[in-house]
Amino acid sequence: MKYKIGLDISGGDFAPEQIFNGALLARKEFADELVLIGVQEEIEGQIRKHNLDIKDFTIVHAPEKVGMGEPPATSVRKKKNSSIAIGMNLLREKKIDAFVSCGNTGAAVCGATLQVGLMEGVERPGIALVIPTKKGISLIVDVGANIDPKPIHLFQYGIMASVYSQMVLGKENPSIGLLNIGEEECKGPDYVRAVHKLFSATGVNFTGNLEAKDIFSGKCDCIVCDGFVGNVALKVSEGVAETMGKFLLDEIKRDFIGKIGLLLILKSLKRVKRLMDYSEYGGALLLGVDGIVIIGHGRSNAMAVKNAVKVAIQELKHNVNSEIKNSIDKTSNDPKVKQMLGELAL
Amino acid sequence: MKYKIGLDISGGDFAPEQIFNGALLARKEFADELVLIGVQEEIEGQIRKHNLDIKDFTIVHAPEKVGMGEPPATSVRKKKNSSIAIGMNLLREKKIDAFVSCGNTGAAVCGATLQVGLMEGVERPGIALVIPTKKGISLIVDVGANIDPKPIHLFQYGIMASVYSQMVLGKENPSIGLLNIGEEECKGPDYVRAVHKLFSATGVNFTGNLEAKDIFSGKCDCIVCDGFVGNVALKVSEGVAETMGKFLLDEIKRDFIGKIGLLLILKSLKRVKRLMDYSEYGGALLLGVDGIVIIGHGRSNAMAVKNAVKVAIQELKHNVNSEIKNSIDKTSNDPKVKQMLGELAL
Repeated sequence: MKYKIGLDISGGDFAPEQIFNGALLARKEFADELVLIGVQEEIEGQIRKHNLDIKDFTIVHAPEKVGMGEPPATSVRKKKNSSIAIGMNLLREKKIDAFVSCGNTGAAVCGATLQVGLMEGVERPGIALVIPTKKGISLIVDVGANIDPKPIHLFQYGIMASVYSQMVLGKENPSIGLLNIGEEECKGPDYVRAVHKLFSATGVNFTGNLEAKDIFSGKCDCIVCDGFVGNVALKVSEGVAETMGKFLLDEIKRDFIGKIGLLLILKSLKRVKRLMDYSEYGGALLLGVDGIVIIGHGRSNAMAVKNAVKVAIQELKHNVNSEIKNSIDKTSNDPKVKQMLGELAL
Repeated sequence: MKYKIGLDISGGDFAPEQIFNGALLARKEFADELVLIGVQEEIEGQIRKHNLDIKDFTIVHAPEKVGMGEPPATSVRKKKNSSIAIGMNLLREKKIDAFVSCGNTGAAVCGATLQVGLMEGVERPGIALVIPTKKGISLIVDVGANIDPKPIHLFQYGIMASVYSQMVLGKENPSIGLLNIGEEECKGPDYVRAVHKLFSATGVNFTGNLEAKDIFSGKCDCIVCDGFVGNVALKVSEGVAETMGKFLLDEIKRDFIGKIGLLLILKSLKRVKRLMDYSEYGGALLLGVDGIVIIGHGRSNAMAVKNAVKVAIQELKHNVNSEIKNSIDKTSNDPKVKQMLGELAL
């Protein structure tokens, strides 16, 4: 089956060029149809630059742009003709099957929640990201959608991440870990301890608290945290990788022998860089929305855009959202969970 | 002037051996007196193992031990004869000038707060850690003492870190950055935005929000955050460094040329490892306590212990706490801060 994927051409640090180039890569690789949403003239300009025929592209004109630093709520309220607003509307009206944007994350989360709406029973959307680990890949959620977390939010993130992990990432009975500052049950802020209780009350494969040093060790398939902490964890890891790389190059270049050594390991260094590169893993998923929304990194290049489109297609093929709905429904009606939520007075 | 430094011989993953070995290194390097606090027989056993004379050591017997995973409040209440409890009492009674422990962090924070007490005007202690950055070193606070933060706590962490940074780390007019998920003032949870307002109202060198990717870039001299987020940030960085190291070695070892390259850059790799190694920077400071308490990493080896003792001596030499008291006093009485605290209803 062919899907229609909406792509926000105006969003991202390197828009429109890198986003459009990503669309070209995606066209080559996938049979699905792309709907390019952005400023008509800009998109046409990109098409002409590549000596391609405008008739071969589906374009939806979105005259307004949401800046990367713009307050999300304002942009959603005031810019009804932004690429994000128009993309979300197309998704709600089922004129596209999924929407991919590398633009303002907050605006995308806000737009998805207000325009597309959440699945029944889901309280807050969460951004889930696939990350490389020592043992392969894991899924971490939330990395920035929700900075005002309640226990039920994090609990549902775990349930949703587990379904995705199983259906798309091919993990059998995926384990769920709760990001915390210690492994003991008694550790952490009140709301995190409440999440521990909720997971423990259900039949999911909950492995308890996970310390941040183990995020990249592959100890858990799904890592659950709030959006503030998750965002910090993710961005720290980018910073550390960069700093370590710089330290290493500086040190190696200090002597002649090191420089020769560098030449010999260059291929390995590039492979490691690729291994740790977010763009290889595509965009992040906005879990909990009643439609498929993929959020690319603001710094996405063409390859990252193409991979974000790929993630959208995979979600559609596996019909993930319908299974997520079932799981949310099942846990919402689980008497143990209901009792626990009552006890916690959430 | 010679100082008396109390050292918790029972605390830490590699206690008592590595702690005692650290004491020996410190004895060699510094003229100050060490007071070894721990189980008498264990300490004497270590001394005999090195064929040294028991008469040359000052030992204070502390028969009880606090486990690394033990709930802090319980240990403080129940184990009055633990090395941490006895150390804190010696500090309060000014029988030692500083206390160094690599044991249970929570118990040390609890013990310091309850037994030694906080400086007048300080609301919560914070753990400050020196970290390596692209440009040298920075100080991050809090990395785990306070997981129930209020704006005034983070504000005071910044004030205290700034004094330490200036007096001990030799930074002129140190800059203070607030860890947040975006650079814009409007970003982040309510309590973080309130801290932004507090800093902006005073004359400190506040450079605004700092994204987590810049923690290790050296953009700010002092980085302020709550203990949950700070602890996660720190532990993620440990995990990433480890994972990257593993990825790199795995990749390099995949081919023969890489293996030769590895031999040539081995010296550089070791230097980078040392550069990123917490033990080179010594222990963390417990800022806000009315006495000098240094908290070593649980995994401290002898070198880390020695460097933690060094940090204590430096703090004493610079008389940092007296200047921190002045600064806290000054900002507490600043009419702008008072007004802001009133407006925020904190």
